[in-house]
Amino acid sequence: MLDAALQKLQQTLAAEMPICTPMGIRATAWDGRILQMEMPLAPNRNHQYSAFAGSLNALCTVVGWGTVFLMLEGRGLSGNVVIRRGSIRYLRPVHDERIICRGRPVDAEAEQFFFELLTSKGQSKIDLETEIADAAGVLVSFHGSYVVQD
Amino acid sequence: MLDAALQKLQQTLAAEMPICTPMGIRATAWDGRILQMEMPLAPNRNHQYSAFAGSLNALCTVVGWGTVFLMLEGRGLSGNVVIRRGSIRYLRPVHDERIICRGRPVDAEAEQFFFELLTSKGQSKIDLETEIADAAGVLVSFHGSYVVQD
Repeated sequence: MLDAALQKLQQTLAAEMPICTPMGIRATAWDGRILQMEMPLAPNRNHQYSAFAGSLNALCTVVGWGTVFLMLEGRGLSGNVVIRRGSIRYLRPVHDERIICRGRPVDAEAEQFFFELLTSKGQSKIDLETEIADAAGVLVSFHGSYVVQD
Repeated sequence: MLDAALQKLQQTLAAEMPICTPMGIRATAWDGRILQMEMPLAPNRNHQYSAFAGSLNALCTVVGWGTVFLMLEGRGLSGNVVIRRGSIRYLRPVHDERIICRGRPVDAEAEQFFFELLTSKGQSKIDLETEIADAAGVLVSFHGSYVVQD
């Protein structure tokens, strides 16, 4: 079930956001709340052989987008998910060969409000945080505001 | 002279930020203050055949980065340019086949402070705004904080 949802997300990204393919962005885990995605450093490197900020932001943005996609899938819903605003802090350079980004837990009240609004209005919105971290702490911190429309 | 600086920027992007190549990001104009870059929609499209937010952010980020690169080039300086923070608003979907992003004019006082700090301390920082617009107004508005280190 979860594998099928992740596979659907991966197919959607490959088919409908084609730049994810040369970036090597892959959905790797979903526990019903937290989405994990990753990309390799090599195609996403910068002039310092750390990760290019544009690729890091794209990964973080897609993890937020994919989280909303999977939240909808989990309830048998669908909708058009769009990001409205994003903010990102690049705290330390990312040198990992496999760059892993995870969502931060969504507040239960915020999730309930998201679905209530979607059910009653046919559209909704939710703020999500995603991050890239290593053993020493957070490397990249992202906040995105997403909307869902029918 | 300006063409040479733009060409150097383009070569730097292609060689050192390789994901810019499949994105089709190109530096197209620089008047000594405002940098213009563009990318085609097709490889950067999303599920709605408008532009993928991650690609839009990458383009805006690179226009800010390239502006600092060219500001340094214009004074015969060099340094390691890094983005520390970015924030972006996706105001309307971008459907243009050629997506054009331009820097916003840098305040003269901020520019002077940037170079003074760089000369005295060997490192500096500057906040830059870039945007993607059409005839009806701004589509995407970006703000980035960049630092330069030796």
